Amino acid sequence: MNKIKVAVDAMGGDFAPLNDVSGAVIAAEEKRDSLEIILVGKEKLISEELNKHKINLGNLSVVNATEVITMNDSPTDSLKTKSDSSISVGINLVKDKKADAFISAGNTGAVMTASILRLGRIKGVGRPTIGSLFPTDKGRTMVFDVGASVDCKPNHLLEFGVMGSIYMKYVYGIDKPKVGLLNVGEEKSKGDNLTLEAYDLLEKSNLNFVGNVEGRDVLRGRADIIVCDGFVGNVILKFAESVLDVMKSKFRTYSEKGFLQKIWVGMMYGTLKNVVLKDFDYQEYGGVPLLGVNGITIIGHGKSSPIAIKNMIYKAEEMIRKEVNSKISEELSV
Amino acid sequence: MNKIKVAVDAMGGDFAPLNDVSGAVIAAEEKRDSLEIILVGKEKLISEELNKHKINLGNLSVVNATEVITMNDSPTDSLKTKSDSSISVGINLVKDKKADAFISAGNTGAVMTASILRLGRIKGVGRPTIGSLFPTDKGRTMVFDVGASVDCKPNHLLEFGVMGSIYMKYVYGIDKPKVGLLNVGEEKSKGDNLTLEAYDLLEKSNLNFVGNVEGRDVLRGRADIIVCDGFVGNVILKFAESVLDVMKSKFRTYSEKGFLQKIWVGMMYGTLKNVVLKDFDYQEYGGVPLLGVNGITIIGHGKSSPIAIKNMIYKAEEMIRKEVNSKISEELSV
Repeated sequence: MNKIKVAVDAMGGDFAPLNDVSGAVIAAEEKRDSLEIILVGKEKLISEELNKHKINLGNLSVVNATEVITMNDSPTDSLKTKSDSSISVGINLVKDKKADAFISAGNTGAVMTASILRLGRIKGVGRPTIGSLFPTDKGRTMVFDVGASVDCKPNHLLEFGVMGSIYMKYVYGIDKPKVGLLNVGEEKSKGDNLTLEAYDLLEKSNLNFVGNVEGRDVLRGRADIIVCDGFVGNVILKFAESVLDVMKSKFRTYSEKGFLQKIWVGMMYGTLKNVVLKDFDYQEYGGVPLLGVNGITIIGHGKSSPIAIKNMIYKAEEMIRKEVNSKISEELSV
Repeated sequence: MNKIKVAVDAMGGDFAPLNDVSGAVIAAEEKRDSLEIILVGKEKLISEELNKHKINLGNLSVVNATEVITMNDSPTDSLKTKSDSSISVGINLVKDKKADAFISAGNTGAVMTASILRLGRIKGVGRPTIGSLFPTDKGRTMVFDVGASVDCKPNHLLEFGVMGSIYMKYVYGIDKPKVGLLNVGEEKSKGDNLTLEAYDLLEKSNLNFVGNVEGRDVLRGRADIIVCDGFVGNVILKFAESVLDVMKSKFRTYSEKGFLQKIWVGMMYGTLKNVVLKDFDYQEYGGVPLLGVNGITIIGHGKSSPIAIKNMIYKAEEMIRKEVNSKISEELSV
């Protein structure tokens, strides 16, 4: 089996370089024969972390990058001012064919912008898209787009459906994934100008289109893929992420009311976490793909654990082995 | 004090006519001197309910309407085919000045459509808007619009800010309510075409504009009012409502696993309800106003309790006494 080269942003996320390096080490160890991992970032910091692992991995190397784009940096500005950042250097490795994919738990906007500007779009793709997983009764649904493309035209929503279907088929093994159109009502006649026209395009396509889905259906598993303008998807994703934070903070406030409350919340918390909160914990999902660019980019949550980093690496490998980008190009460049 | 006449849809909601009539009776009894309540719906059913209350209220009357628009009826179709529905008759009472306001826990789309078509818009208003309350750390924030107007132009979002500010000031007593623009980033440069232009208009207005707010800020009380296109607001409202349902269903599934689980969930549920779930229970809020139409319409959740119905009646009274519609007209017709 030919080795897949994955560049890993060692400076990405809230726990860099610790979690990034740990995740990379686990992946390199588990897949000595099929993966080559390139850690990108401040060489000295990465070496210190690597030394802790006391393991010699021939398929793990380091590429130095002297700067770091933080979570608070402006994506476009920082790509200009910090030209030797781990994100910049990592994406250039993909651009120069020195790596097959780049994964990062760093500044989402910067990774996205660098990928779109440097790697360019796959032939036939009008707008790239980022998908995000939401938990449902039946498993998971992936919403495209959650922020890569706003002011979409109807054909862009169709493209999201095509790219999303290919991704869910080859990376998640879902045959004929169900595609829903996010809308304000179930009937075909409902919607704004964008969704009314997109409905027609989706209906005529060879996708497994299941019609309109509403905000209340996102968590109900009525579709494997839900397509929408990146403005709506971004608002709903950030809203969903905040629900868990708000709940946790309410429990904290309650437990601070007294000793008994503290014990009681402690007792409940285990069950709560397993029954409800876990599904809403967006940190657990690992990365999400940026689809439509000429190269593979997977973006992870800032709080990604080592296992999340490892899973992002494996997802990138899967996308390359299954030739997801060629399939997108075949489908859309006609 | 002159009496305010409020028409109440006795057939609206999942518990009609029980909750509608009970709420109306409480309001009529508490405000014998200031309110006149007109129950609209099937006379026989209403009388049967009224008889149970064994109370004689001179300020409570009934207007017969032989048909009922159900929650599943198409708003536009049902207004044509069911011309003697409680919604149709109730809105006509307002149109013919026989009532000052109409409140309903029935089919939201039908109440909205009937109000907009029959009552018309206030002079100066381009698009009417429905607001919906969301719980926050600091109290409540009201999102305008959640479904009355899609494909908005920038000036419509400004109008929502103006109408919302007047409503929050006079009905909720918030002086200079903070107005946020729902967007995909905090910076002024973020957004789609609509929000980029709306930002400028809001910034130049005399509203207390606090800038962009993101999906994650909705539950965080950064603004008293959040303005957005009705498409986005509708999706986020329905998503938010579904979160509670999903959590409840997860607890139910867990408690069905065995006897101990059932007892344990029962023990936790009281705390859970008071600490977290209550705030997310959108049924508890009573009604939301449709602003911008020539008349007062308050729309309630289908599961509205008698107290919610009573609160809707009082909110309608408040809007009339504070002359909210005249203030909207003064502000927008310049």
